[in-house]
Amino acid sequence: MTDNVRRLDLRGQTLVASGFHAPVRGTIDWLEDALIAIDEDGLIVSVTRPGEAEYEMAKREAGRAGRLATLPAGTILLPGFVDLHIHAPQYAQLGRGLDVPLEVWLHRYTFPLEARYADTAFAGRVYRRLVDDLLANGTTTALYFATAHVEASNLLADICLERGQRALVGKVAMDDPAGCPDYYRDASPEASVESTRAVIGHIRAMPGNAKGRVLPVVTPRFIPACTDAALQGLGDLARDCGCRVQTHCSESDWAHGHVLARHGMTDAASLDRFGLLTAGGVLAHSNFLTADDMDLLVARKAAVAHCPVSNAYFAGSVFPLKAALEKGVRVGLGTDISGGPIATMLDAMRGAVMASRMLESGVDPDLPPEQRSSRAGARIDFRDAFHLATAGGGDALELPVGRFEPGCHFDALAIDCEAPQGGIRLWGTEAGDDLLQTILYTASRPNLARIWVGGAQVG
Amino acid sequence: MTDNVRRLDLRGQTLVASGFHAPVRGTIDWLEDALIAIDEDGLIVSVTRPGEAEYEMAKREAGRAGRLATLPAGTILLPGFVDLHIHAPQYAQLGRGLDVPLEVWLHRYTFPLEARYADTAFAGRVYRRLVDDLLANGTTTALYFATAHVEASNLLADICLERGQRALVGKVAMDDPAGCPDYYRDASPEASVESTRAVIGHIRAMPGNAKGRVLPVVTPRFIPACTDAALQGLGDLARDCGCRVQTHCSESDWAHGHVLARHGMTDAASLDRFGLLTAGGVLAHSNFLTADDMDLLVARKAAVAHCPVSNAYFAGSVFPLKAALEKGVRVGLGTDISGGPIATMLDAMRGAVMASRMLESGVDPDLPPEQRSSRAGARIDFRDAFHLATAGGGDALELPVGRFEPGCHFDALAIDCEAPQGGIRLWGTEAGDDLLQTILYTASRPNLARIWVGGAQVG
Ligand SMILES: [Zn+2]
Ligand SMILES: [Zn+2]
Repeated sequence: MTDNVRRLDLRGQTLVASGFHAPVRGTIDWLEDALIAIDEDGLIVSVTRPGEAEYEMAKREAGRAGRLATLPAGTILLPGFVDLHIHAPQYAQLGRGLDVPLEVWLHRYTFPLEARYADTAFAGRVYRRLVDDLLANGTTTALYFATAHVEASNLLADICLERGQRALVGKVAMDDPAGCPDYYRDASPEASVESTRAVIGHIRAMPGNAKGRVLPVVTPRFIPACTDAALQGLGDLARDCGCRVQTHCSESDWAHGHVLARHGMTDAASLDRFGLLTAGGVLAHSNFLTADDMDLLVARKAAVAHCPVSNAYFAGSVFPLKAALEKGVRVGLGTDISGGPIATMLDAMRGAVMASRMLESGVDPDLPPEQRSSRAGARIDFRDAFHLATAGGGDALELPVGRFEPGCHFDALAIDCEAPQGGIRLWGTEAGDDLLQTILYTASRPNLARIWVGGAQVG
Repeated sequence: MTDNVRRLDLRGQTLVASGFHAPVRGTIDWLEDALIAIDEDGLIVSVTRPGEAEYEMAKREAGRAGRLATLPAGTILLPGFVDLHIHAPQYAQLGRGLDVPLEVWLHRYTFPLEARYADTAFAGRVYRRLVDDLLANGTTTALYFATAHVEASNLLADICLERGQRALVGKVAMDDPAGCPDYYRDASPEASVESTRAVIGHIRAMPGNAKGRVLPVVTPRFIPACTDAALQGLGDLARDCGCRVQTHCSESDWAHGHVLARHGMTDAASLDRFGLLTAGGVLAHSNFLTADDMDLLVARKAAVAHCPVSNAYFAGSVFPLKAALEKGVRVGLGTDISGGPIATMLDAMRGAVMASRMLESGVDPDLPPEQRSSRAGARIDFRDAFHLATAGGGDALELPVGRFEPGCHFDALAIDCEAPQGGIRLWGTEAGDDLLQTILYTASRPNLARIWVGGAQVG
C-alpha cells in the first residue's frame, strides 16, 4: 500500500464490506455490505448480512460505539492467501536457475546459495524483503522452509513475528552425506534433531508469540537428503513436540525413483513409517502419488502443497489435482519460491488452472485428442483455485484462516479495483463470479490496497 | 511511469545506456555503456561500445552539442515488446470466459461483446485504456484484430497514432452466415472486402501517419467465419493494396477439423490458395500445423503468432514451437487478449517457456517418462522467449524493430530494477544472462519506468 494511507486496525471493530470467499470448494460466496465483527484478538466473532434480523441493530450499535469501519467504495474484500510452500532463502535466486533437473539444480545453485545463510546479516536482508513482499502480494499465511542453520531460521521466525505475518517456519534437516554437500549439511542425525528442537524452542519462546502466530515445523528436506536415523528422530520429535511436519514428496521421476530404490516403497509410505505423515502436515509437490498413497494421506489427514509453476520446470509432469481432490486429499497451493519463479499466490492460482487444463487436454498436437490425454475431467477453474489458495490452505494446516466465518482469524485483503498501476480493468458490468474471476486473473500488487493479519493491518 | 517524471524525447539525441537485446535467437547481447545515436525520425543511426575507436569522440561531440542523454544508474534498456496477437475489443472481457471451447466461447461471450463496438463511445473508452495499458506494459508494437465495424476500427487506429504506439490494425472480416451470428456479420463477401478497403484507406490517410507508424492489415477472422468468396476477395485486396495479412490458423481440433472437412486441406494450404499466406503476414496459434504446412510458411515467409497462455484454454495442445523454429518458420509471441487472460508480453514469454517445458516432458504422471512424451528437445528458455518477443516479432512483421542496431526504430523500455512496487529484487551479484533472466521472470509494470516508440517517450 502507499505509505500516505493510514493503517486501519480492525481489532475490536465491526467492518462493513463486500467481498468473496470460498468456504466450500467449487462455489463462491458473495458477501454484500456484510458486517464482520472482529474481536480484540483479531478473530471474527460474527458475519451478518443485510436482511438478517440483527443486521441493522448491530450496525447501529457499532456506529454508536465508534467501532464501525468502512472501506472505500469499489473495494473488494478477499481472504488472505495461504502459501503452502516457500523456500525463504531461495528468494535471492527468484527467476533464475531454471535450466537443469532437480538433482543438478540443488547442487549447482541451491545448496551454495542456502549455505550463505550462515551469514545472518545476509539472511536478515533477504528475509525482511521477502516477508514484506509476500505480505504486499497478499500472502497472509506462509509455510516456510528456512535453511539448515539454527540462527538464520530463528531470524526468519523473528522477522515474521515483527512484520505481522502468520507463518510456520522450519529449520531444514538434511544430514545424509550421500545426498548433501560437505559444506552444507547437518553433522549427524542427532544434530538434525537437536537443531530442529532448538528452533522449535526459540519460536515457542519468542516474546510476543504467546498466541502462536508463528509456529515451528519439523522439516526434513526430503528423503534423499536425510538418513533413516534422522527421519526417525524427526518423526519422534514431531510427535513429542506436537509439531506439524513438512517435507517434499515424490516430486520428480528421479526423487520418486530414489525412494523406491532405497526404501522399496513410495515416499508417502516411507514417510509414514517414520511418523512424518500427520494431520496439519504438508507434502510439497507429490506429483507421483499412487492411489494407495492418496488413501494414506487421507487417513493421516496430511495435505499436498501443489506448486504448478515449479512443476513445469522440475517435476516433469502435472500433479493430478482433481484426482487427489476427488479422493478427499487435502490440497493447497504453493509458489515454491524459487523452484517456481513466482512470488505471488495469484500466479500460483493462474498456474494451477492452466496446468490442469493442459493435463486434461494433453499437450502434443501430433496425437489425436483421444490419445493426447486420458485425463478427462482433470481441469479445475478459478473457483477451485481460489478455494485452494485460501480456505484449502487453512484446512491443510488445520488453522482457522481463509474464510470469513466466526472463529476464523481476520486475515484479509482489500482489493482496489481502480488502482491505475494495477492490472484490473472493470467496465461496469462485472458482477458475481465474473467479478471474482476478473480480479483473480488480472490483479497485481498495486491492486492490493490493504492487507490484514489477525485484524492488524500489515501491508 | 509516474507522472511527475519528465518525458525524455530521444529523437536527435545520443543515449548512453546499458541493456540487453537478442538479435539472434539463442544468444543475448549485453550492451554496456553503449552510445546509441538516434536521428530526428527516431531511427538508430549507430551503436558504439566503449573501446571502439569512435566511442570517446562521439560521446564528447554529443555532449558538446547538448545531445547526450543518460538514464539513472541501475536502469536496464530492453527493446520494446512486439505483441503479434491482440483482439482489442476483447480487452473488456480480459480474465473471463475461459470455461468453454473455442466454438462455444465465440458465440456465448465474444461475438456479443464485439457487437457492442458499433457504439464508438464504448469503443473509444476501451481502446484508449487498452493502448495506454499495453504501452505501460512495454508493448511498443501491437498487431490488432479490431471488430467487424469500420468506424470502431478506424478509431482504434486513430488512438494508436495519438498515443504513439506502433500498431497494425485490421478490421475483422467475417461474412459466413454458417459461422457468424446474424447480429454481428459482414453483409456479404463484397461488404467484407469493401469495409476492409475503407479501413485501409482511413489508416493510410490519417494526418500524422505519413511514415506509416500505424499500418492496415487485411484480417479475415478465420476460415470458419468467412465464405470462400470473401477469402478470395481479401487475398486479392491484400495483393492489390500491398497490405499485410493476419488470421487464425489451425488453432484447435475443431477449427483444424472444420477446414479439413470443408476444403479438404489444412488451413495453411487453403489460405495459400487465396493469396493469404504472405511475407510479413501472421497466423495466430497454428498449433496443428503439419510438416508440409511449416514448409509452406517458410516458402511464403509467413509467420506464426504463438500464444501459449491462450492455447492452454482453447487449443487443447501446445504449439510445437521448437520444431517450427528448427524448420525456419518465423515465429513471434502473442498475448491473444482475451483468449489469453494476460495483457503483458512478460506473461507471454513466461508462458512460452513453461508450455515448452510441459510439451517436452509431457504432463501425465501415471505414464513412465518415455511414454509421457516423445518431444525431447522441445523446450525453449528465456533467451529464446526474449528473442521471439522482440526481434522475432519484428522479423515476423518485416518491421525494423526489436534490435538495437542501425536502421532500427528506437522502440525501447527502461527497466528500473529498484522500483519498490515492482517485482524485481536484486542482491548485488546478478549479471549477464542471469540479470536478464531475473528481469524477464520478475518484472512487473512498476519496473517499466519509461517506454519509447521511435525515440519519443510514450509511457
Ligand atoms: Zn520445495
Ligand atoms: Zn485470436
